[in-house]
Parts: sequence; structure tokens; C-alpha cells
Amino acid sequence: MEKGEVNSGFIFPSLPNTLSLVAGNGEGSNSLNAFDRALLNAGVGNLNLIRISSIVPPKVDVIPLPRIPMGSLVPIAYGYYTSDVKGETIAAAVSVALPRDKELCGLIMEYEGICSKREAENKVVEMAKEGFEMRGWEIDKIISISSEHTVEKVGCAFAGAVLWYK
Amino acid sequence: MEKGEVNSGFIFPSLPNTLSLVAGNGEGSNSLNAFDRALLNAGVGNLNLIRISSIVPPKVDVIPLPRIPMGSLVPIAYGYYTSDVKGETIAAAVSVALPRDKELCGLIMEYEGICSKREAENKVVEMAKEGFEMRGWEIDKIISISSEHTVEKVGCAFAGAVLWYK
Amino acid sequence: MEKGEVNSGFIFPSLPNTLSLVAGNGEGSNSLNAFDRALLNAGVGNLNLIRISSIVPPKVDVIPLPRIPMGSLVPIAYGYYTSDVKGETIAAAVSVALPRDKELCGLIMEYEGICSKREAENKVVEMAKEGFEMRGWEIDKIISISSEHTVEKVGCAFAGAVLWYK
Repeated sequence: MEKGEVNSGFIFPSLPNTLSLVAGNGEGSNSLNAFDRALLNAGVGNLNLIRISSIVPPKVDVIPLPRIPMGSLVPIAYGYYTSDVKGETIAAAVSVALPRDKELCGLIMEYEGICSKREAENKVVEMAKEGFEMRGWEIDKIISISSEHTVEKVGCAFAGAVLWYK
Repeated sequence: MEKGEVNSGFIFPSLPNTLSLVAGNGEGSNSLNAFDRALLNAGVGNLNLIRISSIVPPKVDVIPLPRIPMGSLVPIAYGYYTSDVKGETIAAAVSVALPRDKELCGLIMEYEGICSKREAENKVVEMAKEGFEMRGWEIDKIISISSEHTVEKVGCAFAGAVLWYK
Repeated sequence: MEKGEVNSGFIFPSLPNTLSLVAGNGEGSNSLNAFDRALLNAGVGNLNLIRISSIVPPKVDVIPLPRIPMGSLVPIAYGYYTSDVKGETIAAAVSVALPRDKELCGLIMEYEGICSKREAENKVVEMAKEGFEMRGWEIDKIISISSEHTVEKVGCAFAGAVLWYK
């Protein structure tokens, strides 16, 4: 921590230092159970998701989803779409733009809608680029993930960027 | 903490270990004040609610709402419904399914709508059962709470599951 | 901490003790980028906002937005409005009512809509008064902030109340 900087450690001993992209889809008898199924499919169904808008702390490691104890309070940015229109194809995607300058933060963007996963992912990558242009920052790389679901009864597509600690 | 497990303590020294169900309803001159009134009626109106999706950590104690300092940042899963249709009956409910296997987590479900509290509570209990079926887990018990409100000007029905510490 | 009081320190070593009002507006090619631009304009675009409902802990200091490390997980109450109707004027406002009795908490209210910033701010001040009337508490003072935006392509108006630590 730089001298004179406000201490974030009052809330958290340190900022999250890992980032993991996850995605999933699923069916339920109603939209909340379908959302729950999509979360399970993505590997985050037994965690307490705390939705954030939508910044990656500097110098995170991008890793596969770590083993996180059930019920943990986990910061996550995500997109999801639920539909009860049989046969409809829905999708969700998140992208992460990581900066060339490692002192800067990354930016997470989310998108969801009645579209293919390819369309969702293209869209969300453009959004991350726009966010970096606004900041006047150079992108090191963009990573993304998406899911797609064709509805049977009630379906959900979900994609998220999990922040955690190692 | 098991060997090799990711340390959740970087965010919180320990997972929440209590669960309290609360419900309330009320009127205001607009939907946000009606929501505030319903929170006050439920006993959580002077807390900072952080909405979570929607897991009960293993081995929590189910207790009446403890005394929590005003302004605390409190993890909660909740449902609510506001309406400005005079005479309309609205309701909100949450249920919690607790597992037979005490190493597993519990699941919170929320429901809200233009219905009676009995209907909302029946619905949300079915949703919790469906969530446990998806996981292939056995239920020890399901608890639930609900509120109902008949709108005068602008009304709100609220129900929530508060996680906290003892 | 009073004897017998539940220890909030299991989540946070202490309650937030500063409050800062922020507001901004901006344009993007879509609503999420417009929201991001409004956050940047307000000075909180590189933080992880965790939305809370909507209490000011007792005895906070009202200060200008402190320097907070990028990516920090920051509790905030906020209102925002996005529109893609060219020429439409949109606004968002937050107000904070602070109590005469310094042992009590303050109350944050949010409002957003198709209106001027003056209208939004008037509205949100009335809402804060109503919240204190519900509690039977006396107001020491009300502070507020607002933003206004006339849409070109896709625009966003944003106002928020940041809780933090010093």
C-alpha cells in the first residue's frame, strides 16, 4: 500500500487476487430453479454470490475456479437470461479486459439475451474494448466465456467472473 | 478447514453461522418508502442489506433475529413485492431447506407476487425441494416465512433469510 | 461495543465511518458502457460497487470521496437511469438524512427517472423525510446530490452514497 493511500484492509485484509471465468446453463420448473441449475452447472451453485460492478483488481491471477467452501460470500460479476419460451435460444457472456499497465485494473463486461453464445461473446468483447477506450488505457488481452441454452420448459444461461483469494 | 481447501477467511474470518427468518409489510407514499417500511416491520430496516444468492453455510444455528448494530453490512436473501394498485393483495416468502448431511449447505428460495402468503409459502417450499432434488441431497427439514399486504396507496410485502454471526 | 451486543466485527473489523456523495453522467454505445461512463464521471468507475440498502452507520464523517484503491469492494447505495431515447433528459439523485441523536443511523434514499436533476433531488429529499417520520426520529440535516443527462445515443445519469473507512 502506498503511503497516504486509504486502507482498503478495513473491509478485506487484501483485495481479491484471483479471477476465474465460469459459465453454465440449465432447466427448472421456474426461473429461480433454472437459475440455480445454471449456477450448479457453472460450478458456483453452492456459493453465496455477491454481485459487483465490475472491476478486476490489479495483478490478479487468472485461474480455474478454485475450491471455495460451500456458503462462502463470493464477489462475482455476472450476466444471465431466463426464458419460458419453448425452443428459444438464450445466451449469456462475460468478458474481461486486462491492462498492459499492471498497476491498472481490469474491466468486466456482461451481456445476456435471446441470441447465440457466439453473438453474446462478440458483443461483450466489444463492450470491454469500449470501456478501455473510455479510460484511454491499452489492453493486454481480453478473455471471455459464454453459455447458451435452448429452452425446454424454463431455462437459464449464465456466465460470470469470480473474484477470490489465494 | 480441510487441508488443501481455499481459505475463505481472507474475506471473512469465518462463514456466517446463524440464520434468521424475517418478514414484514407496510405502506409508503412511493415504492422505496413502502419497502423501507416493510423492512422496519421485519426488524431489518436499520441495517445495510447485501443481497446474496442464496446458500446457507453448513451447520448454521437457526435463531431469532439477533441484535445487530445499526448500519451493519448484513448478508441476506430476500423476496419482496411492491404495488400501487389499491386493494390488491401481495405477498413474499422465503424458504430454507436444510440438509440431512451436516457437511452440506442449505438452500434459500424466494418468491413474491400478487397472491396470498399461503400461496407464496407453498410455492417457495416446492422450489426448495426442487433445489435439493437437483443436488441429489436429502432434506432434514424445510422452514419458511411469509408476509402479505393489501395495498392502500403503495404497499410492500417482504420476507428474508438473514445470515449473521454469533 | 455495548455489553451483550452482537459483534459486527466478524464481518468487518469496524463499521464504515465515512460517507461521500458522488454523481455523474455519460454516454456509451449501449446501456452498460453508458453506466460505466457515468461511474467514471462520478469518480467510482474503477471500484467494485456492492449495492446496499441504504443505511448510514451512526457517527460517520461526511467527506469528499477518498482515494480508494482500484478494484476495492465498496458498499454504496445508488440510483441510476439509462435511456436510448435521443433528446430525453434523465436524472438520478440520492439524499441522506442524518439524525439529531448521534446514536442513531442515517437513511439514504435514491430516485431516478425521466426528469430534471432538480425534480429528482426534490423527490429524494421528501423520501428521506418520510423515512425519518416513519421512525419517529428528528433530522439534524439532509444532504443530497444529483446528476442529469440529455441523451445523444445511449445515456446514463448516476448518483450514489459511498460508505468507506478512514
